[in-house]
Amino acid sequence: MRSVAPDGAARRVGMVGGGQLARMTAQAAVPLGVTLTVLDPDPEPPAAGAGAQVLVGDPGRLDDLLALAARTDVVTFDHERVPLEHLRTLQELGHRVAPGWATAELAFDKAASRRRLRDHGFPVPRFTTAATVADVVAFGDAAGWPVVVKAAAGGYDGRGVAVVGDGRAARDAVARLGDRLVVESLVPFDAELAVLVARNHSGEVAGYPPVVTRQHDAMCAEVLTPAPIPAAVRRAAVDLAESLATEFGLVGVMAVELFLVGEDLVINELATRPHNTAHHTIEAAETSQFEQHLRAVLGWPLGATRSRARAAAMVNVVGAADGSDPRRHLAGALALPGAHVHLYGKAPRPGRKLGHVTALGATAAEARAVAHRAAALLGSPDPQARSGGAA
Amino acid sequence: MRSVAPDGAARRVGMVGGGQLARMTAQAAVPLGVTLTVLDPDPEPPAAGAGAQVLVGDPGRLDDLLALAARTDVVTFDHERVPLEHLRTLQELGHRVAPGWATAELAFDKAASRRRLRDHGFPVPRFTTAATVADVVAFGDAAGWPVVVKAAAGGYDGRGVAVVGDGRAARDAVARLGDRLVVESLVPFDAELAVLVARNHSGEVAGYPPVVTRQHDAMCAEVLTPAPIPAAVRRAAVDLAESLATEFGLVGVMAVELFLVGEDLVINELATRPHNTAHHTIEAAETSQFEQHLRAVLGWPLGATRSRARAAAMVNVVGAADGSDPRRHLAGALALPGAHVHLYGKAPRPGRKLGHVTALGATAAEARAVAHRAAALLGSPDPQARSGGAA
Repeated sequence: MRSVAPDGAARRVGMVGGGQLARMTAQAAVPLGVTLTVLDPDPEPPAAGAGAQVLVGDPGRLDDLLALAARTDVVTFDHERVPLEHLRTLQELGHRVAPGWATAELAFDKAASRRRLRDHGFPVPRFTTAATVADVVAFGDAAGWPVVVKAAAGGYDGRGVAVVGDGRAARDAVARLGDRLVVESLVPFDAELAVLVARNHSGEVAGYPPVVTRQHDAMCAEVLTPAPIPAAVRRAAVDLAESLATEFGLVGVMAVELFLVGEDLVINELATRPHNTAHHTIEAAETSQFEQHLRAVLGWPLGATRSRARAAAMVNVVGAADGSDPRRHLAGALALPGAHVHLYGKAPRPGRKLGHVTALGATAAEARAVAHRAAALLGSPDPQARSGGAA
Repeated sequence: MRSVAPDGAARRVGMVGGGQLARMTAQAAVPLGVTLTVLDPDPEPPAAGAGAQVLVGDPGRLDDLLALAARTDVVTFDHERVPLEHLRTLQELGHRVAPGWATAELAFDKAASRRRLRDHGFPVPRFTTAATVADVVAFGDAAGWPVVVKAAAGGYDGRGVAVVGDGRAARDAVARLGDRLVVESLVPFDAELAVLVARNHSGEVAGYPPVVTRQHDAMCAEVLTPAPIPAAVRRAAVDLAESLATEFGLVGVMAVELFLVGEDLVINELATRPHNTAHHTIEAAETSQFEQHLRAVLGWPLGATRSRARAAAMVNVVGAADGSDPRRHLAGALALPGAHVHLYGKAPRPGRKLGHVTALGATAAEARAVAHRAAALLGSPDPQARSGGAA
């Protein structure tokens, strides 16, 4: 993209990774006159179709990260598969990285994250770090089985996580997940919630209304708003997310995934980037999470986070077993009033996240029905049928 | 953009012209997996920054239009500066053109348009076609002065139009506007309205709620919705737009600009493409005009046109007298709650349309105040101050 009038103001954003989050960030960048450059090994990642420039390279290599930093005003992230020490080096060399490495660690390194959250007094499950089967078994025997074993780094969409019921299963998990592990108690939650929060350099912080999420095959399957929870819990969830953002000096957006246990909140995962649990903000919030992220990393005022819809539901579009392209079924989905279809330009493969649908409605139940119907029409396998959820 | 799974379904749209309308159409194309290719003499027109492919060429040359048609499934338009006979040739060669040349003529040729509208019984101002000063003077003497003289083709944003009060002014106008003219009575309107209407191949038709518009320097300066007009007039305006779409076999979207005189509606201009008077639909309608246009030209079901906002106002961002770039002033505009900024990636020049702001609010007056404030912060000269409008 041509720079029409360079004046030194920061508006060139670099993003590590060019996947669907970068694609939707690129869409938000266009009307703001922001140029987005993504670092990706693929010369035509999803973001390329939305106007992003592509710097072909390896997010694991410092030289490639430096090349991205050199041509942009701030570096931010579409995923966590980046060595934290490289982020630290970029910052030491004077490049702006948002969030900075110390904040990113909360998402990039689950072991460090759990320790830091606990040390700052935030609610986390009972956990330990582990390197061996014996460590896992000792924790399970002490805290009770089953336990959750997680690779300290590199996991996403449920990869890198195992629920383990005994020593034998622990052995399999350690063999698969490596020797930098977090082991924690399985939380008997009543619901899973998520709060997206944004913070900019000047300390302005803004949380979005909480959503309730449902996972399937460890992938976010459904997001509903408003969350059917008491107002006090809703406020507590937003307060918790905003406190985390302030305490750890977030710059950008962060998704805070929470377990609700009775009226208590326990932190499940943090993601220091735009997130699947907030895609509905494109249509349903005054400011989308993608525009909000750009505002935050560029040092602009944050946008309003209030809801623009009475209710909304987001459902992922997952590749059909027969590998068919959801674009072939678009006309059917577009016939559903209130359904907003977002395809990511990814090659269809069974089980792959290819897009999402956000439906707006008078109630969350109504929106949910439309979103699931649209996803099904696009060929997405029905997560409700497989996980026994209600219609 | 890579075609991830070609299956023969129509989803490659060609657009003649790569300006801001093409740019916003490209933004709507991304989530639908539609590829947009624009034909433009400029290798980096505004649409390029939003993910559109660019075919460099001259919209006036048949060969270039054929090259666009050859690589896309349907050809549509960002502007009217295309010879109608070329569209006819494309269609005769079997290419899909939306709207087709006979519908496009309503917008591309003001003389043919006025005749056809009158012959079909639609309300138009008293008019005649003219070639000479004597023709203009004869009409003015018969119908009353002042009269409006328009070039039959090629005008936009008020270029190609003159309000003429006497024979001397008629001479100047004819010298400037050429010898294919329409002359019509100046309509003493109470308000200017606009209705965007969409129609697809299968005859499905959908009008948006009417807006009230205000012009300044013959450029659309302000759009407000809901229009402060009686419900009966609102219905009549939508009915009129839908009747036009059906009568003339529109495929795509069309903007119908109307004069309101008492409770009567008179057709001012038609534009058979997305239009400045419907930019607010991006945030304020269930389906944006750009997505609607893609749905219509690709033969998909039309989206809902109902309003998603209690009230909305759209104000253009026009280049400041000092030539400064509105992007330099973005942070100020983004601090206004409810303001949605859209910049077009155009080089700043005094008086040039560089973007728009849509503000949502509880009332049209509230939205209008925010939109004007945001545009002013972006350096746009204040059309209210210059034309005496109220705050």
